[in-house]
This record gives sequence, C-alpha cells and structure tokens, in this order.
Amino acid sequence: MSSAMETEYPHPYVPTDLRLPGYVPNFLTQTEIVVPYIACSVVVASLVWFFSGRISKISKTDRILMCWWVFTGLTHIILEGYFVFSPEFYKKKVPCYLAEVWKEYSKGDSRYAGRDTAIVIVEGVTSVLEGPASLVAMYAIATGKPYSHTLQLTICIGQLYGCIIYFVASFLDGDNFAKSPFYYWVYYVFANSIWVVIPTMIVVRSWRKISKAFLGENKKRKAH
Amino acid sequence: MSSAMETEYPHPYVPTDLRLPGYVPNFLTQTEIVVPYIACSVVVASLVWFFSGRISKISKTDRILMCWWVFTGLTHIILEGYFVFSPEFYKKKVPCYLAEVWKEYSKGDSRYAGRDTAIVIVEGVTSVLEGPASLVAMYAIATGKPYSHTLQLTICIGQLYGCIIYFVASFLDGDNFAKSPFYYWVYYVFANSIWVVIPTMIVVRSWRKISKAFLGENKKRKAH
Repeated sequence: MSSAMETEYPHPYVPTDLRLPGYVPNFLTQTEIVVPYIACSVVVASLVWFFSGRISKISKTDRILMCWWVFTGLTHIILEGYFVFSPEFYKKKVPCYLAEVWKEYSKGDSRYAGRDTAIVIVEGVTSVLEGPASLVAMYAIATGKPYSHTLQLTICIGQLYGCIIYFVASFLDGDNFAKSPFYYWVYYVFANSIWVVIPTMIVVRSWRKISKAFLGENKKRKAH
Repeated sequence: MSSAMETEYPHPYVPTDLRLPGYVPNFLTQTEIVVPYIACSVVVASLVWFFSGRISKISKTDRILMCWWVFTGLTHIILEGYFVFSPEFYKKKVPCYLAEVWKEYSKGDSRYAGRDTAIVIVEGVTSVLEGPASLVAMYAIATGKPYSHTLQLTICIGQLYGCIIYFVASFLDGDNFAKSPFYYWVYYVFANSIWVVIPTMIVVRSWRKISKAFLGENKKRKAH
C-alpha cells in the first residue's frame, strides 16, 4: 500500500479519487485504536458509577445515565473536538492517538478526511455545544437540579438532529464513502446507531417525567 | 436580462457560474410575492387569535404563541415543504406562486436554486418534522396538554439547530450566495433571524416553566 522510499502515500479511502495531498498512513492498528478508547471509557464510567453510589436517594437509572453522559460528553469534547479543530489530521507524520482515530474512522466514512462541510458543522455543534452540556447534564442529575430533564432532552434532540444530518447528507451525496461493507456496517452504521438509540430512549424518558411533573402541578392547582 | 426569442435565460443568482439549465425568470414581482405571504399569515394568525380568545383561562402569551405556531407550522409545511419536494422549481414555465417564492428567495441565497445538500436536509427536517409538530404545539397549548412546553422546546431546539447549520454551512462555503447586499441583509439575514430570535425566547420560557413544575413537585414531595 505504501512505499517507504517516497513521501507520497496512496490513501485507503473511498471514493479513490478523493484528493488528500500529504496523507500519511496509520501508525496504529485497528485494535490499538479501538481498545484504548473502550478501556478509557470503561474506567471513566466505572468511576462515575462508583462515586454516584454515594449520592443519597439516586435511582440506578440515573446512575447509568450519569455514566452515559460522562462517556458521551468526553467523546464529544476530546475525540470530536480534536477532529473539528485539526483539519490536517491525516498529514500527521508522528503518531498522535486522536489523529489515528480519525484516519481509521475515515475508512468507514471518508467525508471526515475529505472535510465535508456538513460533517464539520455537525461535529462542531456536537463538540462545542453538546459535549460540555453533557457534562452539565451529569452534574444536574447528581445534584437533582429541576432543569435536569430539560437539559437531557435538549442535548438528545441536538444529537438526533445531528444524526439525521449525518445519515441523510451521506445518502443524498451518493452513500459511497466506506472502504468496504465491513467498515460501512461497523464504523458508519453500528457506531453511530448508539447515538440514535440511547438519545431516543432518553428523550422518551425525560418527556414522560416532564409531563408527570406538569400533571402533578395541575392536580395540586385543582386541589386548592 | 431575458430574451423572448430564445428559451435560454441567464439566471440572476450569485455565484454567476452556478449552472441552472432550463431556468425561467420570475413571473411575479417582489411585491406580488411578499405581500400575499404576509397577508395570508396575518389572516391565519388573526383567526387563531380570535378563536383562542374563547378558550377559558388562557393567557395572552399563550394566545400569541398559538398564532406563532400556526404561522411557523404552515410556513414550514407549505413553503418549505414545496421547496424540498420540487427540485426543478426554477424551471417552471407557467406561473406557480410557490416556485416564484423560491426563485425570488434564491436571490438572497442561491444555495436554494443550486440545491445544496445541507439546505435540502435542513429544509427536509423543518418541513416534514417541525412543520406538523408546530401545529401539534398550537393544539397542545389550546388544550393545556402536560407535554406542551416539552414539545415547544423540542421544536425550537430543532429550529435553532437548523439555523446554525444554515448559517455556518454558508460561512464555511464562502458566504457568497447573495445577488447584492440588499438581498443578503433582507432575505438571508433578516428573514432567517426571526427563526433565531423567537425560538430562543420560547426555549427560555418553556425551560423556566418546566423547572418551575419540577420545583413544585419537589416541594410537594417534601411536604408529605
């Protein structure tokens, strides 16, 4: 695939006519990229799970949600934030973990390496607004803030809107950005479906909780 | 601008190298396009204002919001819905009011005539999801549904996300899609700013109302 004598490397992405001058191949293997991400996520989520157990009167669901919010928040801020502010990540000549992540992920969606406008905006909103907001959501659950469900719902609507843009833009632009069916289904479809399924579940839950709060308020008003 | 002898008309949009084979110039003037839109909106909003006055115990703010939701809902469904499902609107050889609207609006943002991917997706989400949801929001206010604020907040977050995509995509793609500063400021900036300012105000209001409902619920729980 690459020749060590020259500095020009062909890139592995589809479409093959995508121009990426200065591309440098991955230094790390798929395992070396995926395992640290999962391991770090498990460690951070476990810490949140452990410490959240010391909060009085917190439900297990709320503790699980705290783990989710720290995981998704840090993924948005660190991983996706790096992508947004590093347009030349594929040119990195020295190993850099975050650049490796996006060089690998681009095998499932070359719009990342190609810096597609829709991708950059969605990732920008996700990393700059939704990332920090996710950490605030974790804090709001921990401290039982009255805006906890409103914030969770707001972030999830943003995440779902982002996913719609992400998938529909690809569809309208020909849906031909994956190196092979493996990368298409595992990176593009499966990895992103997590951010469709979980936010949808949170929207349903928070929506119901808010309606219940209003029903309680109406009853109280009628009782007086 | 146009020659009646030939069937090829140069388009008035910027950038001038935008290719729009089959383009047919506007049949209606700016006034003939804008006045009916404003007049129809005023009539529909007035009807909602009149009938909402017959609902018992409804606040003036809620009545104003019902007028807003019917206006924005019908704008999303009819005007924006037409754009989404009429990729060849600029080729219409017979006068069609909705095609005229988008031929005129494209003078402020040629990405509409050029069928930019980001525009098509944002308008698709807006017309198909947010449009009908806006009419449900009007109904939810009228009938005092417990999900009223949740729904209003959800739609507004969607509208604001759409506006971010809309403005940032233009900025990243060079911000050169208006025929003149007049069209830039009036069509592109002013007309769209309405959907930034009003949804922001509704988000703040509904956010506070939901927090208040939860505070009331917590107090009640503590009192028992």
